[in-house]
Amino acid sequence: MTKTYIFGHKNPDTDAISSAIIMADFEQLRGNTEATAYRLGDVSAETQFALDHFNVNAPELLTDDLEDQDVILVDHNEFQQSSDTISGATIKHVIDHHRISNFETAGPLYYRAEPVGCTATILYKMYKERGFEIKREIAGLMVSAIISDSLLFKSPTCTKEDVAAAQALKDIAQIDLDSYGLDMLKAGASTTDKSAEFLINKDAKSFNMGDYVTRIAQVNTVDIDEVLDRKDEFEKVMLEASANEKYDLFVLVVTDIINSNSKILVVGAEKEKVGEAFNVKLDDGMAFLTGVVSRKKQVVPQITEVLIK
Amino acid sequence: MTKTYIFGHKNPDTDAISSAIIMADFEQLRGNTEATAYRLGDVSAETQFALDHFNVNAPELLTDDLEDQDVILVDHNEFQQSSDTISGATIKHVIDHHRISNFETAGPLYYRAEPVGCTATILYKMYKERGFEIKREIAGLMVSAIISDSLLFKSPTCTKEDVAAAQALKDIAQIDLDSYGLDMLKAGASTTDKSAEFLINKDAKSFNMGDYVTRIAQVNTVDIDEVLDRKDEFEKVMLEASANEKYDLFVLVVTDIINSNSKILVVGAEKEKVGEAFNVKLDDGMAFLTGVVSRKKQVVPQITEVLIK
Repeated sequence: MTKTYIFGHKNPDTDAISSAIIMADFEQLRGNTEATAYRLGDVSAETQFALDHFNVNAPELLTDDLEDQDVILVDHNEFQQSSDTISGATIKHVIDHHRISNFETAGPLYYRAEPVGCTATILYKMYKERGFEIKREIAGLMVSAIISDSLLFKSPTCTKEDVAAAQALKDIAQIDLDSYGLDMLKAGASTTDKSAEFLINKDAKSFNMGDYVTRIAQVNTVDIDEVLDRKDEFEKVMLEASANEKYDLFVLVVTDIINSNSKILVVGAEKEKVGEAFNVKLDDGMAFLTGVVSRKKQVVPQITEVLIK
Repeated sequence: MTKTYIFGHKNPDTDAISSAIIMADFEQLRGNTEATAYRLGDVSAETQFALDHFNVNAPELLTDDLEDQDVILVDHNEFQQSSDTISGATIKHVIDHHRISNFETAGPLYYRAEPVGCTATILYKMYKERGFEIKREIAGLMVSAIISDSLLFKSPTCTKEDVAAAQALKDIAQIDLDSYGLDMLKAGASTTDKSAEFLINKDAKSFNMGDYVTRIAQVNTVDIDEVLDRKDEFEKVMLEASANEKYDLFVLVVTDIINSNSKILVVGAEKEKVGEAFNVKLDDGMAFLTGVVSRKKQVVPQITEVLIK
């Protein structure tokens, strides 16, 4: 039997790391003894909290060339988010909850995508459908991934299926959802020990919007003021990055994961347009956005609409 | 509720037409009352035989612009095989058994691909998983699609799951697999009433193989000699098409669906290389290939290997 490499996206979050470990377990249970989980980047503090709580080792960093190797992708499909050698691999299976783009295979494969809030929710359904036992640590990683992707069920990307899966999994994992969930999110939300440059790059994506290139970074925190006390430091890094990478606009979204609000900081010649997108006037480049937590659903479409006019 | 357009690929075969009808029924059963099956081209004689046997109307030909419409794709995903307005549609779901290529969406979706021999086999599993009743005519279309794609289970693309589905469905459909299957395949295999040009274009695909462009057409028949008695007529059409479309090689695969063999007719300067691919010497441009029935698995890779050397 040949090895099967299983991994989530670059800049891995808790869903990317957990789903790789879970899918490797699933494959082992169905007899694929060579299924092995990998990761494409560093383990975040949030993910490490979950791994430690359930006493699971992080997967090995992937360094092998995947040319002609069997792989299973979890929590992503777009090649630019995957291994640099993915185009030569034989993709056997994909489990994902994102749009499909920049993805192709030479032959038929298994592909399972569902528009739910978390890849681990789909994996949970796969265990249930097969009647496979969900061990405590696997349940723990599933529920951790769901809490992470849904910000404890508060994100508009969260679906009924994610909530139902988490409710069922909390008992197997032997956790209280609220207290474990908040502890885990807080573990990943410490900002004082990190440089502005690190925080700006940790979870940032670029978007083409009409004639503009907009960079949007998100930082989760339990204290928005603690982050934006360093406003000058962030602005400097954002302006430098915009000059080097030719971003027209750079938006930093600082999200309060406890109260589910965000404050944005914007740089760029057309920054007032970002205020317009949310019907607010920027004050010193900033604005408070009540109830905004999801970049995908509550930030990107709104700015896009104003910029493509 | 907005309409959901459901359809298979252009040049529809029995799986493309049947799976659209079946998926529309599935969607209706789960409460999507606006789910409607369409087709992207003419119904073949084989498919018409199945529709008539189970007293089902062919879907309407799709002529609407799909801009901003909800669609479900069955039996294909590549945009060049789909509606000409597919890129503006909102793709909600895909059920398919092919490789994924030239496909993308703006948002998350349901996607179910499995490497089985027929889309209807996946649809059969979906009914079973949900506990939905499979009506006689739906079972009939499912088993017809499986028989068609697998050439009565003889194609190397046929899997155990396709066979198991057909075995379960034959009772609901109230048919004998062998006699119904042969009658259906024969209904689509009549060649005497069709022009060489029609037969050459009915099921033909182009392939880039190294520096060569190879066109491979396949014609199913119950009598290879009946087809190749018209060799001169075919050669003329193939040479004309090669000159007009700049094909380096044109291979006609005439497949005996009863005995599971094929005879090939080749035109093009390098036609001896095609013989080489099958370890035979062409006789008057032709060769008999024992046991060859699948273009995808038994013809394309073999010719590719010789031409890319």
